[in-house]
Amino acid sequence: MILVLSPDATPDQIEHILEHVRQSGFTPFPVKGEFRTIIGAIGDDTNPAAESFRVLPGVEQVLMILKPFKLASREFHKADSVIEVGPTKIGGGHLAVIAGPCAVENEETLDSIAARVKQAGANILRGGAFKPRTSPYSFQGLGEDGLRLLRAVGDRYQLPVVTEVMDTRQVELVNRYADMLQIGARNMQNFELLKEVGQTNKPVLLKRGMSATVKDLLMSAEYILAGGNNQVVLCERGVRGFEDSTRNMLDLAAVPNIKGQSHLPVIVDPSHATGRPDLIPPMARAAVAAGADGIHIEVHTCPEKALSDGPQALLPDQFDALMRDVQGLAKFFHKVLS
Amino acid sequence: MILVLSPDATPDQIEHILEHVRQSGFTPFPVKGEFRTIIGAIGDDTNPAAESFRVLPGVEQVLMILKPFKLASREFHKADSVIEVGPTKIGGGHLAVIAGPCAVENEETLDSIAARVKQAGANILRGGAFKPRTSPYSFQGLGEDGLRLLRAVGDRYQLPVVTEVMDTRQVELVNRYADMLQIGARNMQNFELLKEVGQTNKPVLLKRGMSATVKDLLMSAEYILAGGNNQVVLCERGVRGFEDSTRNMLDLAAVPNIKGQSHLPVIVDPSHATGRPDLIPPMARAAVAAGADGIHIEVHTCPEKALSDGPQALLPDQFDALMRDVQGLAKFFHKVLS
Amino acid sequence: MILVLSPDATPDQIEHILEHVRQSGFTPFPVKGEFRTIIGAIGDDTNPAAESFRVLPGVEQVLMILKPFKLASREFHKADSVIEVGPTKIGGGHLAVIAGPCAVENEETLDSIAARVKQAGANILRGGAFKPRTSPYSFQGLGEDGLRLLRAVGDRYQLPVVTEVMDTRQVELVNRYADMLQIGARNMQNFELLKEVGQTNKPVLLKRGMSATVKDLLMSAEYILAGGNNQVVLCERGVRGFEDSTRNMLDLAAVPNIKGQSHLPVIVDPSHATGRPDLIPPMARAAVAAGADGIHIEVHTCPEKALSDGPQALLPDQFDALMRDVQGLAKFFHKVLS
Amino acid sequence: MILVLSPDATPDQIEHILEHVRQSGFTPFPVKGEFRTIIGAIGDDTNPAAESFRVLPGVEQVLMILKPFKLASREFHKADSVIEVGPTKIGGGHLAVIAGPCAVENEETLDSIAARVKQAGANILRGGAFKPRTSPYSFQGLGEDGLRLLRAVGDRYQLPVVTEVMDTRQVELVNRYADMLQIGARNMQNFELLKEVGQTNKPVLLKRGMSATVKDLLMSAEYILAGGNNQVVLCERGVRGFEDSTRNMLDLAAVPNIKGQSHLPVIVDPSHATGRPDLIPPMARAAVAAGADGIHIEVHTCPEKALSDGPQALLPDQFDALMRDVQGLAKFFHKVLS
Repeated sequence: MILVLSPDATPDQIEHILEHVRQSGFTPFPVKGEFRTIIGAIGDDTNPAAESFRVLPGVEQVLMILKPFKLASREFHKADSVIEVGPTKIGGGHLAVIAGPCAVENEETLDSIAARVKQAGANILRGGAFKPRTSPYSFQGLGEDGLRLLRAVGDRYQLPVVTEVMDTRQVELVNRYADMLQIGARNMQNFELLKEVGQTNKPVLLKRGMSATVKDLLMSAEYILAGGNNQVVLCERGVRGFEDSTRNMLDLAAVPNIKGQSHLPVIVDPSHATGRPDLIPPMARAAVAAGADGIHIEVHTCPEKALSDGPQALLPDQFDALMRDVQGLAKFFHKVLS
Repeated sequence: MILVLSPDATPDQIEHILEHVRQSGFTPFPVKGEFRTIIGAIGDDTNPAAESFRVLPGVEQVLMILKPFKLASREFHKADSVIEVGPTKIGGGHLAVIAGPCAVENEETLDSIAARVKQAGANILRGGAFKPRTSPYSFQGLGEDGLRLLRAVGDRYQLPVVTEVMDTRQVELVNRYADMLQIGARNMQNFELLKEVGQTNKPVLLKRGMSATVKDLLMSAEYILAGGNNQVVLCERGVRGFEDSTRNMLDLAAVPNIKGQSHLPVIVDPSHATGRPDLIPPMARAAVAAGADGIHIEVHTCPEKALSDGPQALLPDQFDALMRDVQGLAKFFHKVLS
Repeated sequence: MILVLSPDATPDQIEHILEHVRQSGFTPFPVKGEFRTIIGAIGDDTNPAAESFRVLPGVEQVLMILKPFKLASREFHKADSVIEVGPTKIGGGHLAVIAGPCAVENEETLDSIAARVKQAGANILRGGAFKPRTSPYSFQGLGEDGLRLLRAVGDRYQLPVVTEVMDTRQVELVNRYADMLQIGARNMQNFELLKEVGQTNKPVLLKRGMSATVKDLLMSAEYILAGGNNQVVLCERGVRGFEDSTRNMLDLAAVPNIKGQSHLPVIVDPSHATGRPDLIPPMARAAVAAGADGIHIEVHTCPEKALSDGPQALLPDQFDALMRDVQGLAKFFHKVLS
Repeated sequence: MILVLSPDATPDQIEHILEHVRQSGFTPFPVKGEFRTIIGAIGDDTNPAAESFRVLPGVEQVLMILKPFKLASREFHKADSVIEVGPTKIGGGHLAVIAGPCAVENEETLDSIAARVKQAGANILRGGAFKPRTSPYSFQGLGEDGLRLLRAVGDRYQLPVVTEVMDTRQVELVNRYADMLQIGARNMQNFELLKEVGQTNKPVLLKRGMSATVKDLLMSAEYILAGGNNQVVLCERGVRGFEDSTRNMLDLAAVPNIKGQSHLPVIVDPSHATGRPDLIPPMARAAVAAGADGIHIEVHTCPEKALSDGPQALLPDQFDALMRDVQGLAKFFHKVLS
């Protein structure tokens, strides 16, 4: 950590700062410049006492040098983590294709979608039973009935299943049915929920919050890892921006950015990121080319009858065409899709 | 609702759209233009079936005309709502001054802060017992011990108390101690939590999420109101922006913007919005001048020993000076601070 | 255009609005709903009189249906435009690779860079002679001497050259030396400059402004096209966002988004978008996979001696490796790089 | 400046870095930590060679400690600058009220608006003769005829006049007619234009760009000051944000934020910031309460006939009411409006 002092810091203030730094467990190295003094404080930057440095009289800025996350960092775990969701692997050269409807609506629709995405090459089935909806008047999901249907249809097509958990009280229930627990963008900093899924033994799909930096996302992953569950897959799904012709702004550079700092796999969800079927296939191709460990695509056999987010789903034929490109690109980049 | 068709929509597609609109319970009024047809769809825009319109072949855009919230709207309730928190009123000409430390740390510190903010004119005491922290390694709050201290000190100084609730499982507990329940920015779209506090009989302080539009905020308020609890106070606390010299970007225009559309009181938190003690007093003054129904200020007797967010707290003397301005401005704008 | 009236618009106000719409050259079609009236106004949305509609008493919103640009639109020109820069083609299946240093510094450095990028497969040479720098104290470019060097080195390696023009007074001079004129992000809405390059007969590389929407970018292209110059290539180079670990946020979805609405070619500049050499190659690959008509890459033989933006340049060896991937992807997507 | 080395920097790399730092004119102070070395580099941070440090092998981050602007800084000039525009003073306790139409349209309209704003207490008249319009098909301003009208009407009502200059070639002409030259948001980083107005002897009103940080704005001011013209007034006019119910997002905290770092006066333009007449008066009041040195308000006698931006203009009666509040607040804050 580095403390930048203000140009008019007095000798007394500097002495007080050095003393406070030492008492907090850091070793201070002051450097006197022409205009001001800076103090290198050697120690553990995750030490919560460090927060107090910025408020000391005479301190102008505190610059953090070390990353505030440990277990999620490349330094802690050099090799790419490979996460297993049933028979499907994610990361370390293994590409995941998670596909399915936004929400589980009924068995017939889910079955017909699952049949098509399996045939096209998807290796994980998704579908929401608990739905976070902006409006209290929108369809909120089928709850346990939805979980039961998802499990049954997943088993029928030999696809492991992922579904969202929105509340600490739902974790035990969702855990009983799902192979992977999804934390949605709106709950990325629902820290009690992160702690709770950190206590389970299931892989977690953690979606980036709409205003979360890459560091924020990795700190949320750290909550899960610190709870003892090291099976975390991150998902870039678009952030809030000013462009008003797409639902969100897909920050695809986050993929190599995260992978440089962390061993955790990163997948991309172009469905939520763009909200437009015409933009989903090019962004899915781009995701693979950017080095993503998987893609997450909403597919629906009849978007106009979907109870949630129909407008952003691909039709099965569109998904088939996309998958032909994805398989070609996977081969080009020496990735395995199994 | 208005459906804008694409220039090459066929007569068959148009017929299918008109039929689908009618079956969903809307009355369609088509208008044929030179380049394209538009269809006015008269009915209830909060009807979830409306979502499906965008996906119909031949539809290019769907424009929502009506507001998607009802209970929170000015149309539903013309007069300003006045919310009572113990003896303190918020809204309708009543100004709230919520002050206190970021976190409850120990009785002595909390007592000394409460004594000073009471004396300066604050009318609600704040303090966190459950703290949402970006890092799992930071101080997470005292839990029930903190609630007990907050209650005791509030009673001692005859100040009603507000504190954050982060999880559905904490609602019953926090409700036992607090006069007002706070939903933090990170939980603004934790819909299960919104439903749960909607079942209580306590006023709720709902903070705007970092990437929430004004409409998103009002939709989250709608969740609480729809649950039967109509005591909601909204709080603007800064949104995520690109300016890197402040913690967030305070969107002060949200105050008159919300008040034009909704009867709910709106207060402003310049502490989290700016994260800098030098900017808090001018932004607090600006909030009152913009028509806010209150301000929310962090105060600490010794910021360098604070266990959370010390750098953004005012010292009691700074708070005293600010309160003299706030009282003068309240008088200027015919607001009551009691 | 659609006018949404307020719920309490009076019959007199509605009559005044209808009259005003007619006088402005539009045909109004009113539709009375349960809560409010909407008026479809059939006519030319680019008619400047339309701006006044929003201010009429009783009007709550004005919704534009038609795109505000004409010459840049797909409706105006269905096929992809192919722009020729010397012997190099951009668009319609032709991939451009623009490479070179940020600034022209001296002949030796420029020559060594040009030799390497030519050999690796680049087909346009870039280099700034007039440099837009945030600080007045930074290197501002070599001016005409830089143009002369760029021309000479381009000719030596048979590479057409592109360079930035920052001021209307420089257009004639830059036009004398360059094969393509670049308008930088900071000048995307320097409308006098757009008009001036619209009067030339040279292709223009128009970079997206840091806070420009896709529509804003197309409106700026419209300025050039309306001046009579239809050789415009657009460039996505990242927009301002809140992520603080990259220089800008690359909005790659803008590529298919623009190409759906416009016939103009779109290229991507991952150097400025990310500002980090480790992120440039993955984003360049992603750009090709997203359907971009070219990439724009800064290359320098000795970044630590570069006078401008050294930190974001690739070394020639890194560029070689990237080009091998780009050539493979071009083949995969049936694009020609010549 | 501080160089943070990577954990695996080799002794040879460190030696090369120290050597390079010395040769660039800085004195290096290395501090070896547990995980990595940091180097304090004492010298002139505006030295352009400093840019190259980030690219040296072994360097992970370069942290700038000193501000990159000099002439605009409080350190350079401790007292508030007071800028004189004809008889009107801005800054140091003097409040400017700049009012008038968006564009000069004809003498009659301008005269009637000037009469009203003068009577209400405005002390500078504004009106555009050269208009930066998003669309090439919109009204582009009256040019020199507009300047002549503005001058005549200003003289008639004894109001100094400010008007926008969009191009280096217009500076001489605008300078002949106006008392103050305005640089619009879209030209804030049109560096050639900044240099050109830096050569004049007229005060400059420099508006913040839509995606400019406070530091960017101060760097643009530095361009003008470095040219020898020290009469610069800054203007906060809203930045691009994700909130879609206002035109821009007003960053009012920028006012005290800038005033803490710079001696230059700062005014606020709530007309462009919000784009909504209902939000302009509360934001103008808030600006004064936040410590702004003036406000900039668009006023039109008949917004529905305005040729530009009618929807965001106040009517004269609304402006009168606002001015009564502004005068009361000026008195409350001991500001002079003359």
